[in-house]
Amino acid sequence: MRTPHLVRPIDLKSQNPLLFCRGEEEDGGRIGEVDHLAGERAAAQFDVDRMKVAWAGSRHAVDVADRMARLASDPVFRKDNRTMLPRTELFKDTLKKAAHAWKRIVELRLTEEEANLLRLYVDQPGYVDLHWGMFVPAIKGQGTEEQQKKWLPLAYKFQIIGCYAQTELGHGSNVQGLETTATFDPKTDEFVIHSPTLTSSKWWPGGLGRLPLTVVYARLITEGKDYGIHGFIVQLRSLEDHNPLPGVTLGDIGGKFGSGAYNSMDNGVLRFDHVRIPRDQMLMRLSQVQRYSKAVWISSWWHLRLRCSITRLSKADYFLCWLQLMRLDFSTLQEAHACTAGLKAVTTSVTSDAIEECRKLCGGHGYLNSSGLPELFAVYVPACTYDRRQCRIAFAGCEVSNERPSPSWLLENSLLVPQLTMGNIQYLMQCTCGVTTEVDVEMSVVLICLSMICPTAEDWLNPAASKEVFNELSPDLLEVAAAHIQMIIVTKFIEKLEQDIPGEGVKAQLRNLCNVYALHLLHKHLGDFLATGCITAKQGALANQQLGMLYALVRPNAVALVDAFNYTDHYLGSVLGRYDGDVYPALYEEAWKDPLNRTVVPDGYHDYLRPLLKQQLNLSSRL
Amino acid sequence: MRTPHLVRPIDLKSQNPLLFCRGEEEDGGRIGEVDHLAGERAAAQFDVDRMKVAWAGSRHAVDVADRMARLASDPVFRKDNRTMLPRTELFKDTLKKAAHAWKRIVELRLTEEEANLLRLYVDQPGYVDLHWGMFVPAIKGQGTEEQQKKWLPLAYKFQIIGCYAQTELGHGSNVQGLETTATFDPKTDEFVIHSPTLTSSKWWPGGLGRLPLTVVYARLITEGKDYGIHGFIVQLRSLEDHNPLPGVTLGDIGGKFGSGAYNSMDNGVLRFDHVRIPRDQMLMRLSQVQRYSKAVWISSWWHLRLRCSITRLSKADYFLCWLQLMRLDFSTLQEAHACTAGLKAVTTSVTSDAIEECRKLCGGHGYLNSSGLPELFAVYVPACTYDRRQCRIAFAGCEVSNERPSPSWLLENSLLVPQLTMGNIQYLMQCTCGVTTEVDVEMSVVLICLSMICPTAEDWLNPAASKEVFNELSPDLLEVAAAHIQMIIVTKFIEKLEQDIPGEGVKAQLRNLCNVYALHLLHKHLGDFLATGCITAKQGALANQQLGMLYALVRPNAVALVDAFNYTDHYLGSVLGRYDGDVYPALYEEAWKDPLNRTVVPDGYHDYLRPLLKQQLNLSSRL
Repeated sequence: MRTPHLVRPIDLKSQNPLLFCRGEEEDGGRIGEVDHLAGERAAAQFDVDRMKVAWAGSRHAVDVADRMARLASDPVFRKDNRTMLPRTELFKDTLKKAAHAWKRIVELRLTEEEANLLRLYVDQPGYVDLHWGMFVPAIKGQGTEEQQKKWLPLAYKFQIIGCYAQTELGHGSNVQGLETTATFDPKTDEFVIHSPTLTSSKWWPGGLGRLPLTVVYARLITEGKDYGIHGFIVQLRSLEDHNPLPGVTLGDIGGKFGSGAYNSMDNGVLRFDHVRIPRDQMLMRLSQVQRYSKAVWISSWWHLRLRCSITRLSKADYFLCWLQLMRLDFSTLQEAHACTAGLKAVTTSVTSDAIEECRKLCGGHGYLNSSGLPELFAVYVPACTYDRRQCRIAFAGCEVSNERPSPSWLLENSLLVPQLTMGNIQYLMQCTCGVTTEVDVEMSVVLICLSMICPTAEDWLNPAASKEVFNELSPDLLEVAAAHIQMIIVTKFIEKLEQDIPGEGVKAQLRNLCNVYALHLLHKHLGDFLATGCITAKQGALANQQLGMLYALVRPNAVALVDAFNYTDHYLGSVLGRYDGDVYPALYEEAWKDPLNRTVVPDGYHDYLRPLLKQQLNLSSRL
Repeated sequence: MRTPHLVRPIDLKSQNPLLFCRGEEEDGGRIGEVDHLAGERAAAQFDVDRMKVAWAGSRHAVDVADRMARLASDPVFRKDNRTMLPRTELFKDTLKKAAHAWKRIVELRLTEEEANLLRLYVDQPGYVDLHWGMFVPAIKGQGTEEQQKKWLPLAYKFQIIGCYAQTELGHGSNVQGLETTATFDPKTDEFVIHSPTLTSSKWWPGGLGRLPLTVVYARLITEGKDYGIHGFIVQLRSLEDHNPLPGVTLGDIGGKFGSGAYNSMDNGVLRFDHVRIPRDQMLMRLSQVQRYSKAVWISSWWHLRLRCSITRLSKADYFLCWLQLMRLDFSTLQEAHACTAGLKAVTTSVTSDAIEECRKLCGGHGYLNSSGLPELFAVYVPACTYDRRQCRIAFAGCEVSNERPSPSWLLENSLLVPQLTMGNIQYLMQCTCGVTTEVDVEMSVVLICLSMICPTAEDWLNPAASKEVFNELSPDLLEVAAAHIQMIIVTKFIEKLEQDIPGEGVKAQLRNLCNVYALHLLHKHLGDFLATGCITAKQGALANQQLGMLYALVRPNAVALVDAFNYTDHYLGSVLGRYDGDVYPALYEEAWKDPLNRTVVPDGYHDYLRPLLKQQLNLSSRL
């Protein structure tokens, strides 16, 4: 069961919040005394505790998560007032929470796993995300042994805080277009970091507005020659008084979508006016510059990009494990990069659509900040901004290096999925509407993927296809890419179901969810499948019927399935998502916290409302 | 041409902002000195000025809009800082703007048309919207002549300000479920307004938090009998000191989605504890209560609902004209209600999807408040919340009165569209893939609509169909409803194209847009059309080809088409939507306005960042 916010006696007689609240006096609705969802929970057909283990991956993972979620329920980490704080207060609140979290991590000697989970449950974007997620990995991945020895211990103890300055005002994820320069000066053995244009201003890096150090990505130039993009460790602010160092212009890029949400993060703007750093602050694991010679060798750019993509994919842990394995085989690097980018594209857009759908289904109340849904949406959607570009990088191939994936890429990839042999395909494509009551889900999956991939694969396989043809096909290719990713997702889901999953009813519920997911894809993309002739209209109709039946199977288990996600009320931060379902008293109570309600007569009444009502507006002569 | 924010010399050599900014020194990018889109404008193939007339409806409408947009560019109405204001400041700002707008309306003796447009361009949700849009129309529509004579002059001069208190905490648009009671007391000739439960609290009404008067919707009860929902004029606050009157609990319901956006509005919560009002404050045009007898007759609920729907549809003016005509024919009232609700559902969801799509296409910059897109999205999406329910009301029929539309409703409705005769249908359904280069758009339209309506119309036409069957079909019916509405939209568009539209190239551009709209529907819903066999896969492919060709025709005219919408930079409030396309310097300049940038060292550094960096966190003993 999900951990309730407070310990509450369960009132079994009241299972429907609407029925309960209607017609009862307010006294009957005291918060914390009822569990409107107890009936739903009693009806669940599986072992919720075992399902928690199945979601989390292990009993150990559940236990650690429980402990860290409890730690994150500390009042210092309160989330309920974030949308009401002015930006400067919200930022200060983020600094406070980061310091308190670090204090607890040190005090309790938390492991890295525990510390990462604590940050997850504190759930407020801030500089620590960039320090641990980008700065430290950049030094680990691109720094020499010597550089790691020098910088990592400082970073691990937070004696330095770093971020990751890659994107520029005129150049988002298009790394090849970056304009910032790092010109080597052999006379002083230094690099001169400079922003030659307005569009070369670093723009968007999280934590940049306020932190002392960063890894800056800039064009390495020695003896007039451009050696492409490399990373440099650059100090931005004084370690004594936190003021920007000479030649450094630093600021925040301004408010972002939503209230609360990502506004806790100081995404920054940064310009350099000929800032000098020692030569040994270039990250030199993959490329080196020696004082009296040229750069020795240039990094495998793909390797760096792969790392970035994987870091950003952190929410899709399950797939990550599989991708980590793939990384060991260097020959699949480009493919792994494409899949990673594609997985992120598909999973994030599915998630943000689902958040918005939930908001709409909650009616007007889902539009209130107290529902938690606006902030969840606003904090989540930037993920979808990134991945459109990533998807394009992965499949249009022209942005990174003007090269495109090999023509046989798609079919080769299909071989990753053991079920997909030509024999199977022949068999499946011969299926007729003989299927009358139920659509086998594995079959649907394969049909989905094949039918979406087939129509343009022919064009890909034509070795004479010019770059123009390739670009013309781009919108279709993006759809093909998405279909391929969906195939991976469903296939991996099925593979998981073939493993042992203990707990009464657990595997059955997961199988239902897998079927729902696969069949909803079929429903959503029916046009593509029918257009290719992979399935008949009748089969499509049968699949829809089956989907309806599956929804009916899942419905009685819905609340318990959500319980098994194991989120606390504190973490969810939603009066509508409360464990006890007692939403109306909570909505009502929450309203009074708004700053507008601090006074009975609003600020502005005497200046702007009363003169209007009393016909005492000071009218100027008519124009 | 769209009115630029400032007068700027046009620099023809720089048509691409990216090319311009890259590699030039910052000095080259001064704001206001270039028009990066001049080349785009020169390439347009139509008369932009005449297109403005076509969009607006008349030359007069363009002129009034221009004058009011200029008036709204007054610095008092600035929009650029709204997302940075704390809620109490934003609310005060709204009061200030409303007072200033009223001052200008009185000073300049603006007509009602002009005043409405001025409010549109001031573009900040506030109490005036409810006063003019709901309170005044309610009195006009439901008040007796006597009541109108008493209240309207006060309202017209703003001596009283009103709002519209219908929805309750537990009951959104489900008017039949409202719980607030208005019990008639014949002894004193008064109504006693009361909130019997928590869920009966009025919740969401705009302007309610802060205004003196409202029309309250409550169950009329006399002699123990419930006569259903009626409207009552109730004073909430003192006209002298603005404090709530005895028995009235008033507050704001809290922050909403986004920053700025709808947070300028004081959506309110209101509870009554036996508040007494004179009998003549019940709105009695449609029902009356006399002191010594029962209610005489009960209003046509449909009439009221129609009015509400039309009021809320105010953004879709074109359709509104058509609906106004339809209203004259009382026999089509239910149908008009259904169409109005459906039109709102479809147009608002298409619009909000388009806003979100635009945001994503602007990459990361679209996530910044300075792009204007987050606020536009947040202020627009509640429309989609309403209409899901409205769509459900219109087509599932069970919410309002447990009645459902007559089985033949859909086919009858089709008769509204003159082109749709059975002869046409037969002809169109015989079309084969003999079409090889171009898909006739009218044909596509009809195919779209027919093929989407046909699959379930059969079920509707079965008179034996039980209510259960009806409910089971609901999701399909919603899709059918949406298809029907799309049919109306495209048909009306085609009708418009059959009229005379002056101006070189204007009609040709509108025809392209109509074709794009119709064919994108075909593309989007291909699965439904193929499933019903209305078109073949090959025809679908041809339609897609045609769509691609149409995009290429529209592209060179895109900027000029947007110019013809005639929005000022002030009204758009977006650094990315600037008339001159000079986005990068504007983005950069806007960033420095954020409150976070007021200090170089952020508030919180000394408390929470420095102790961390200096390893001086005050650690407590380990737990």
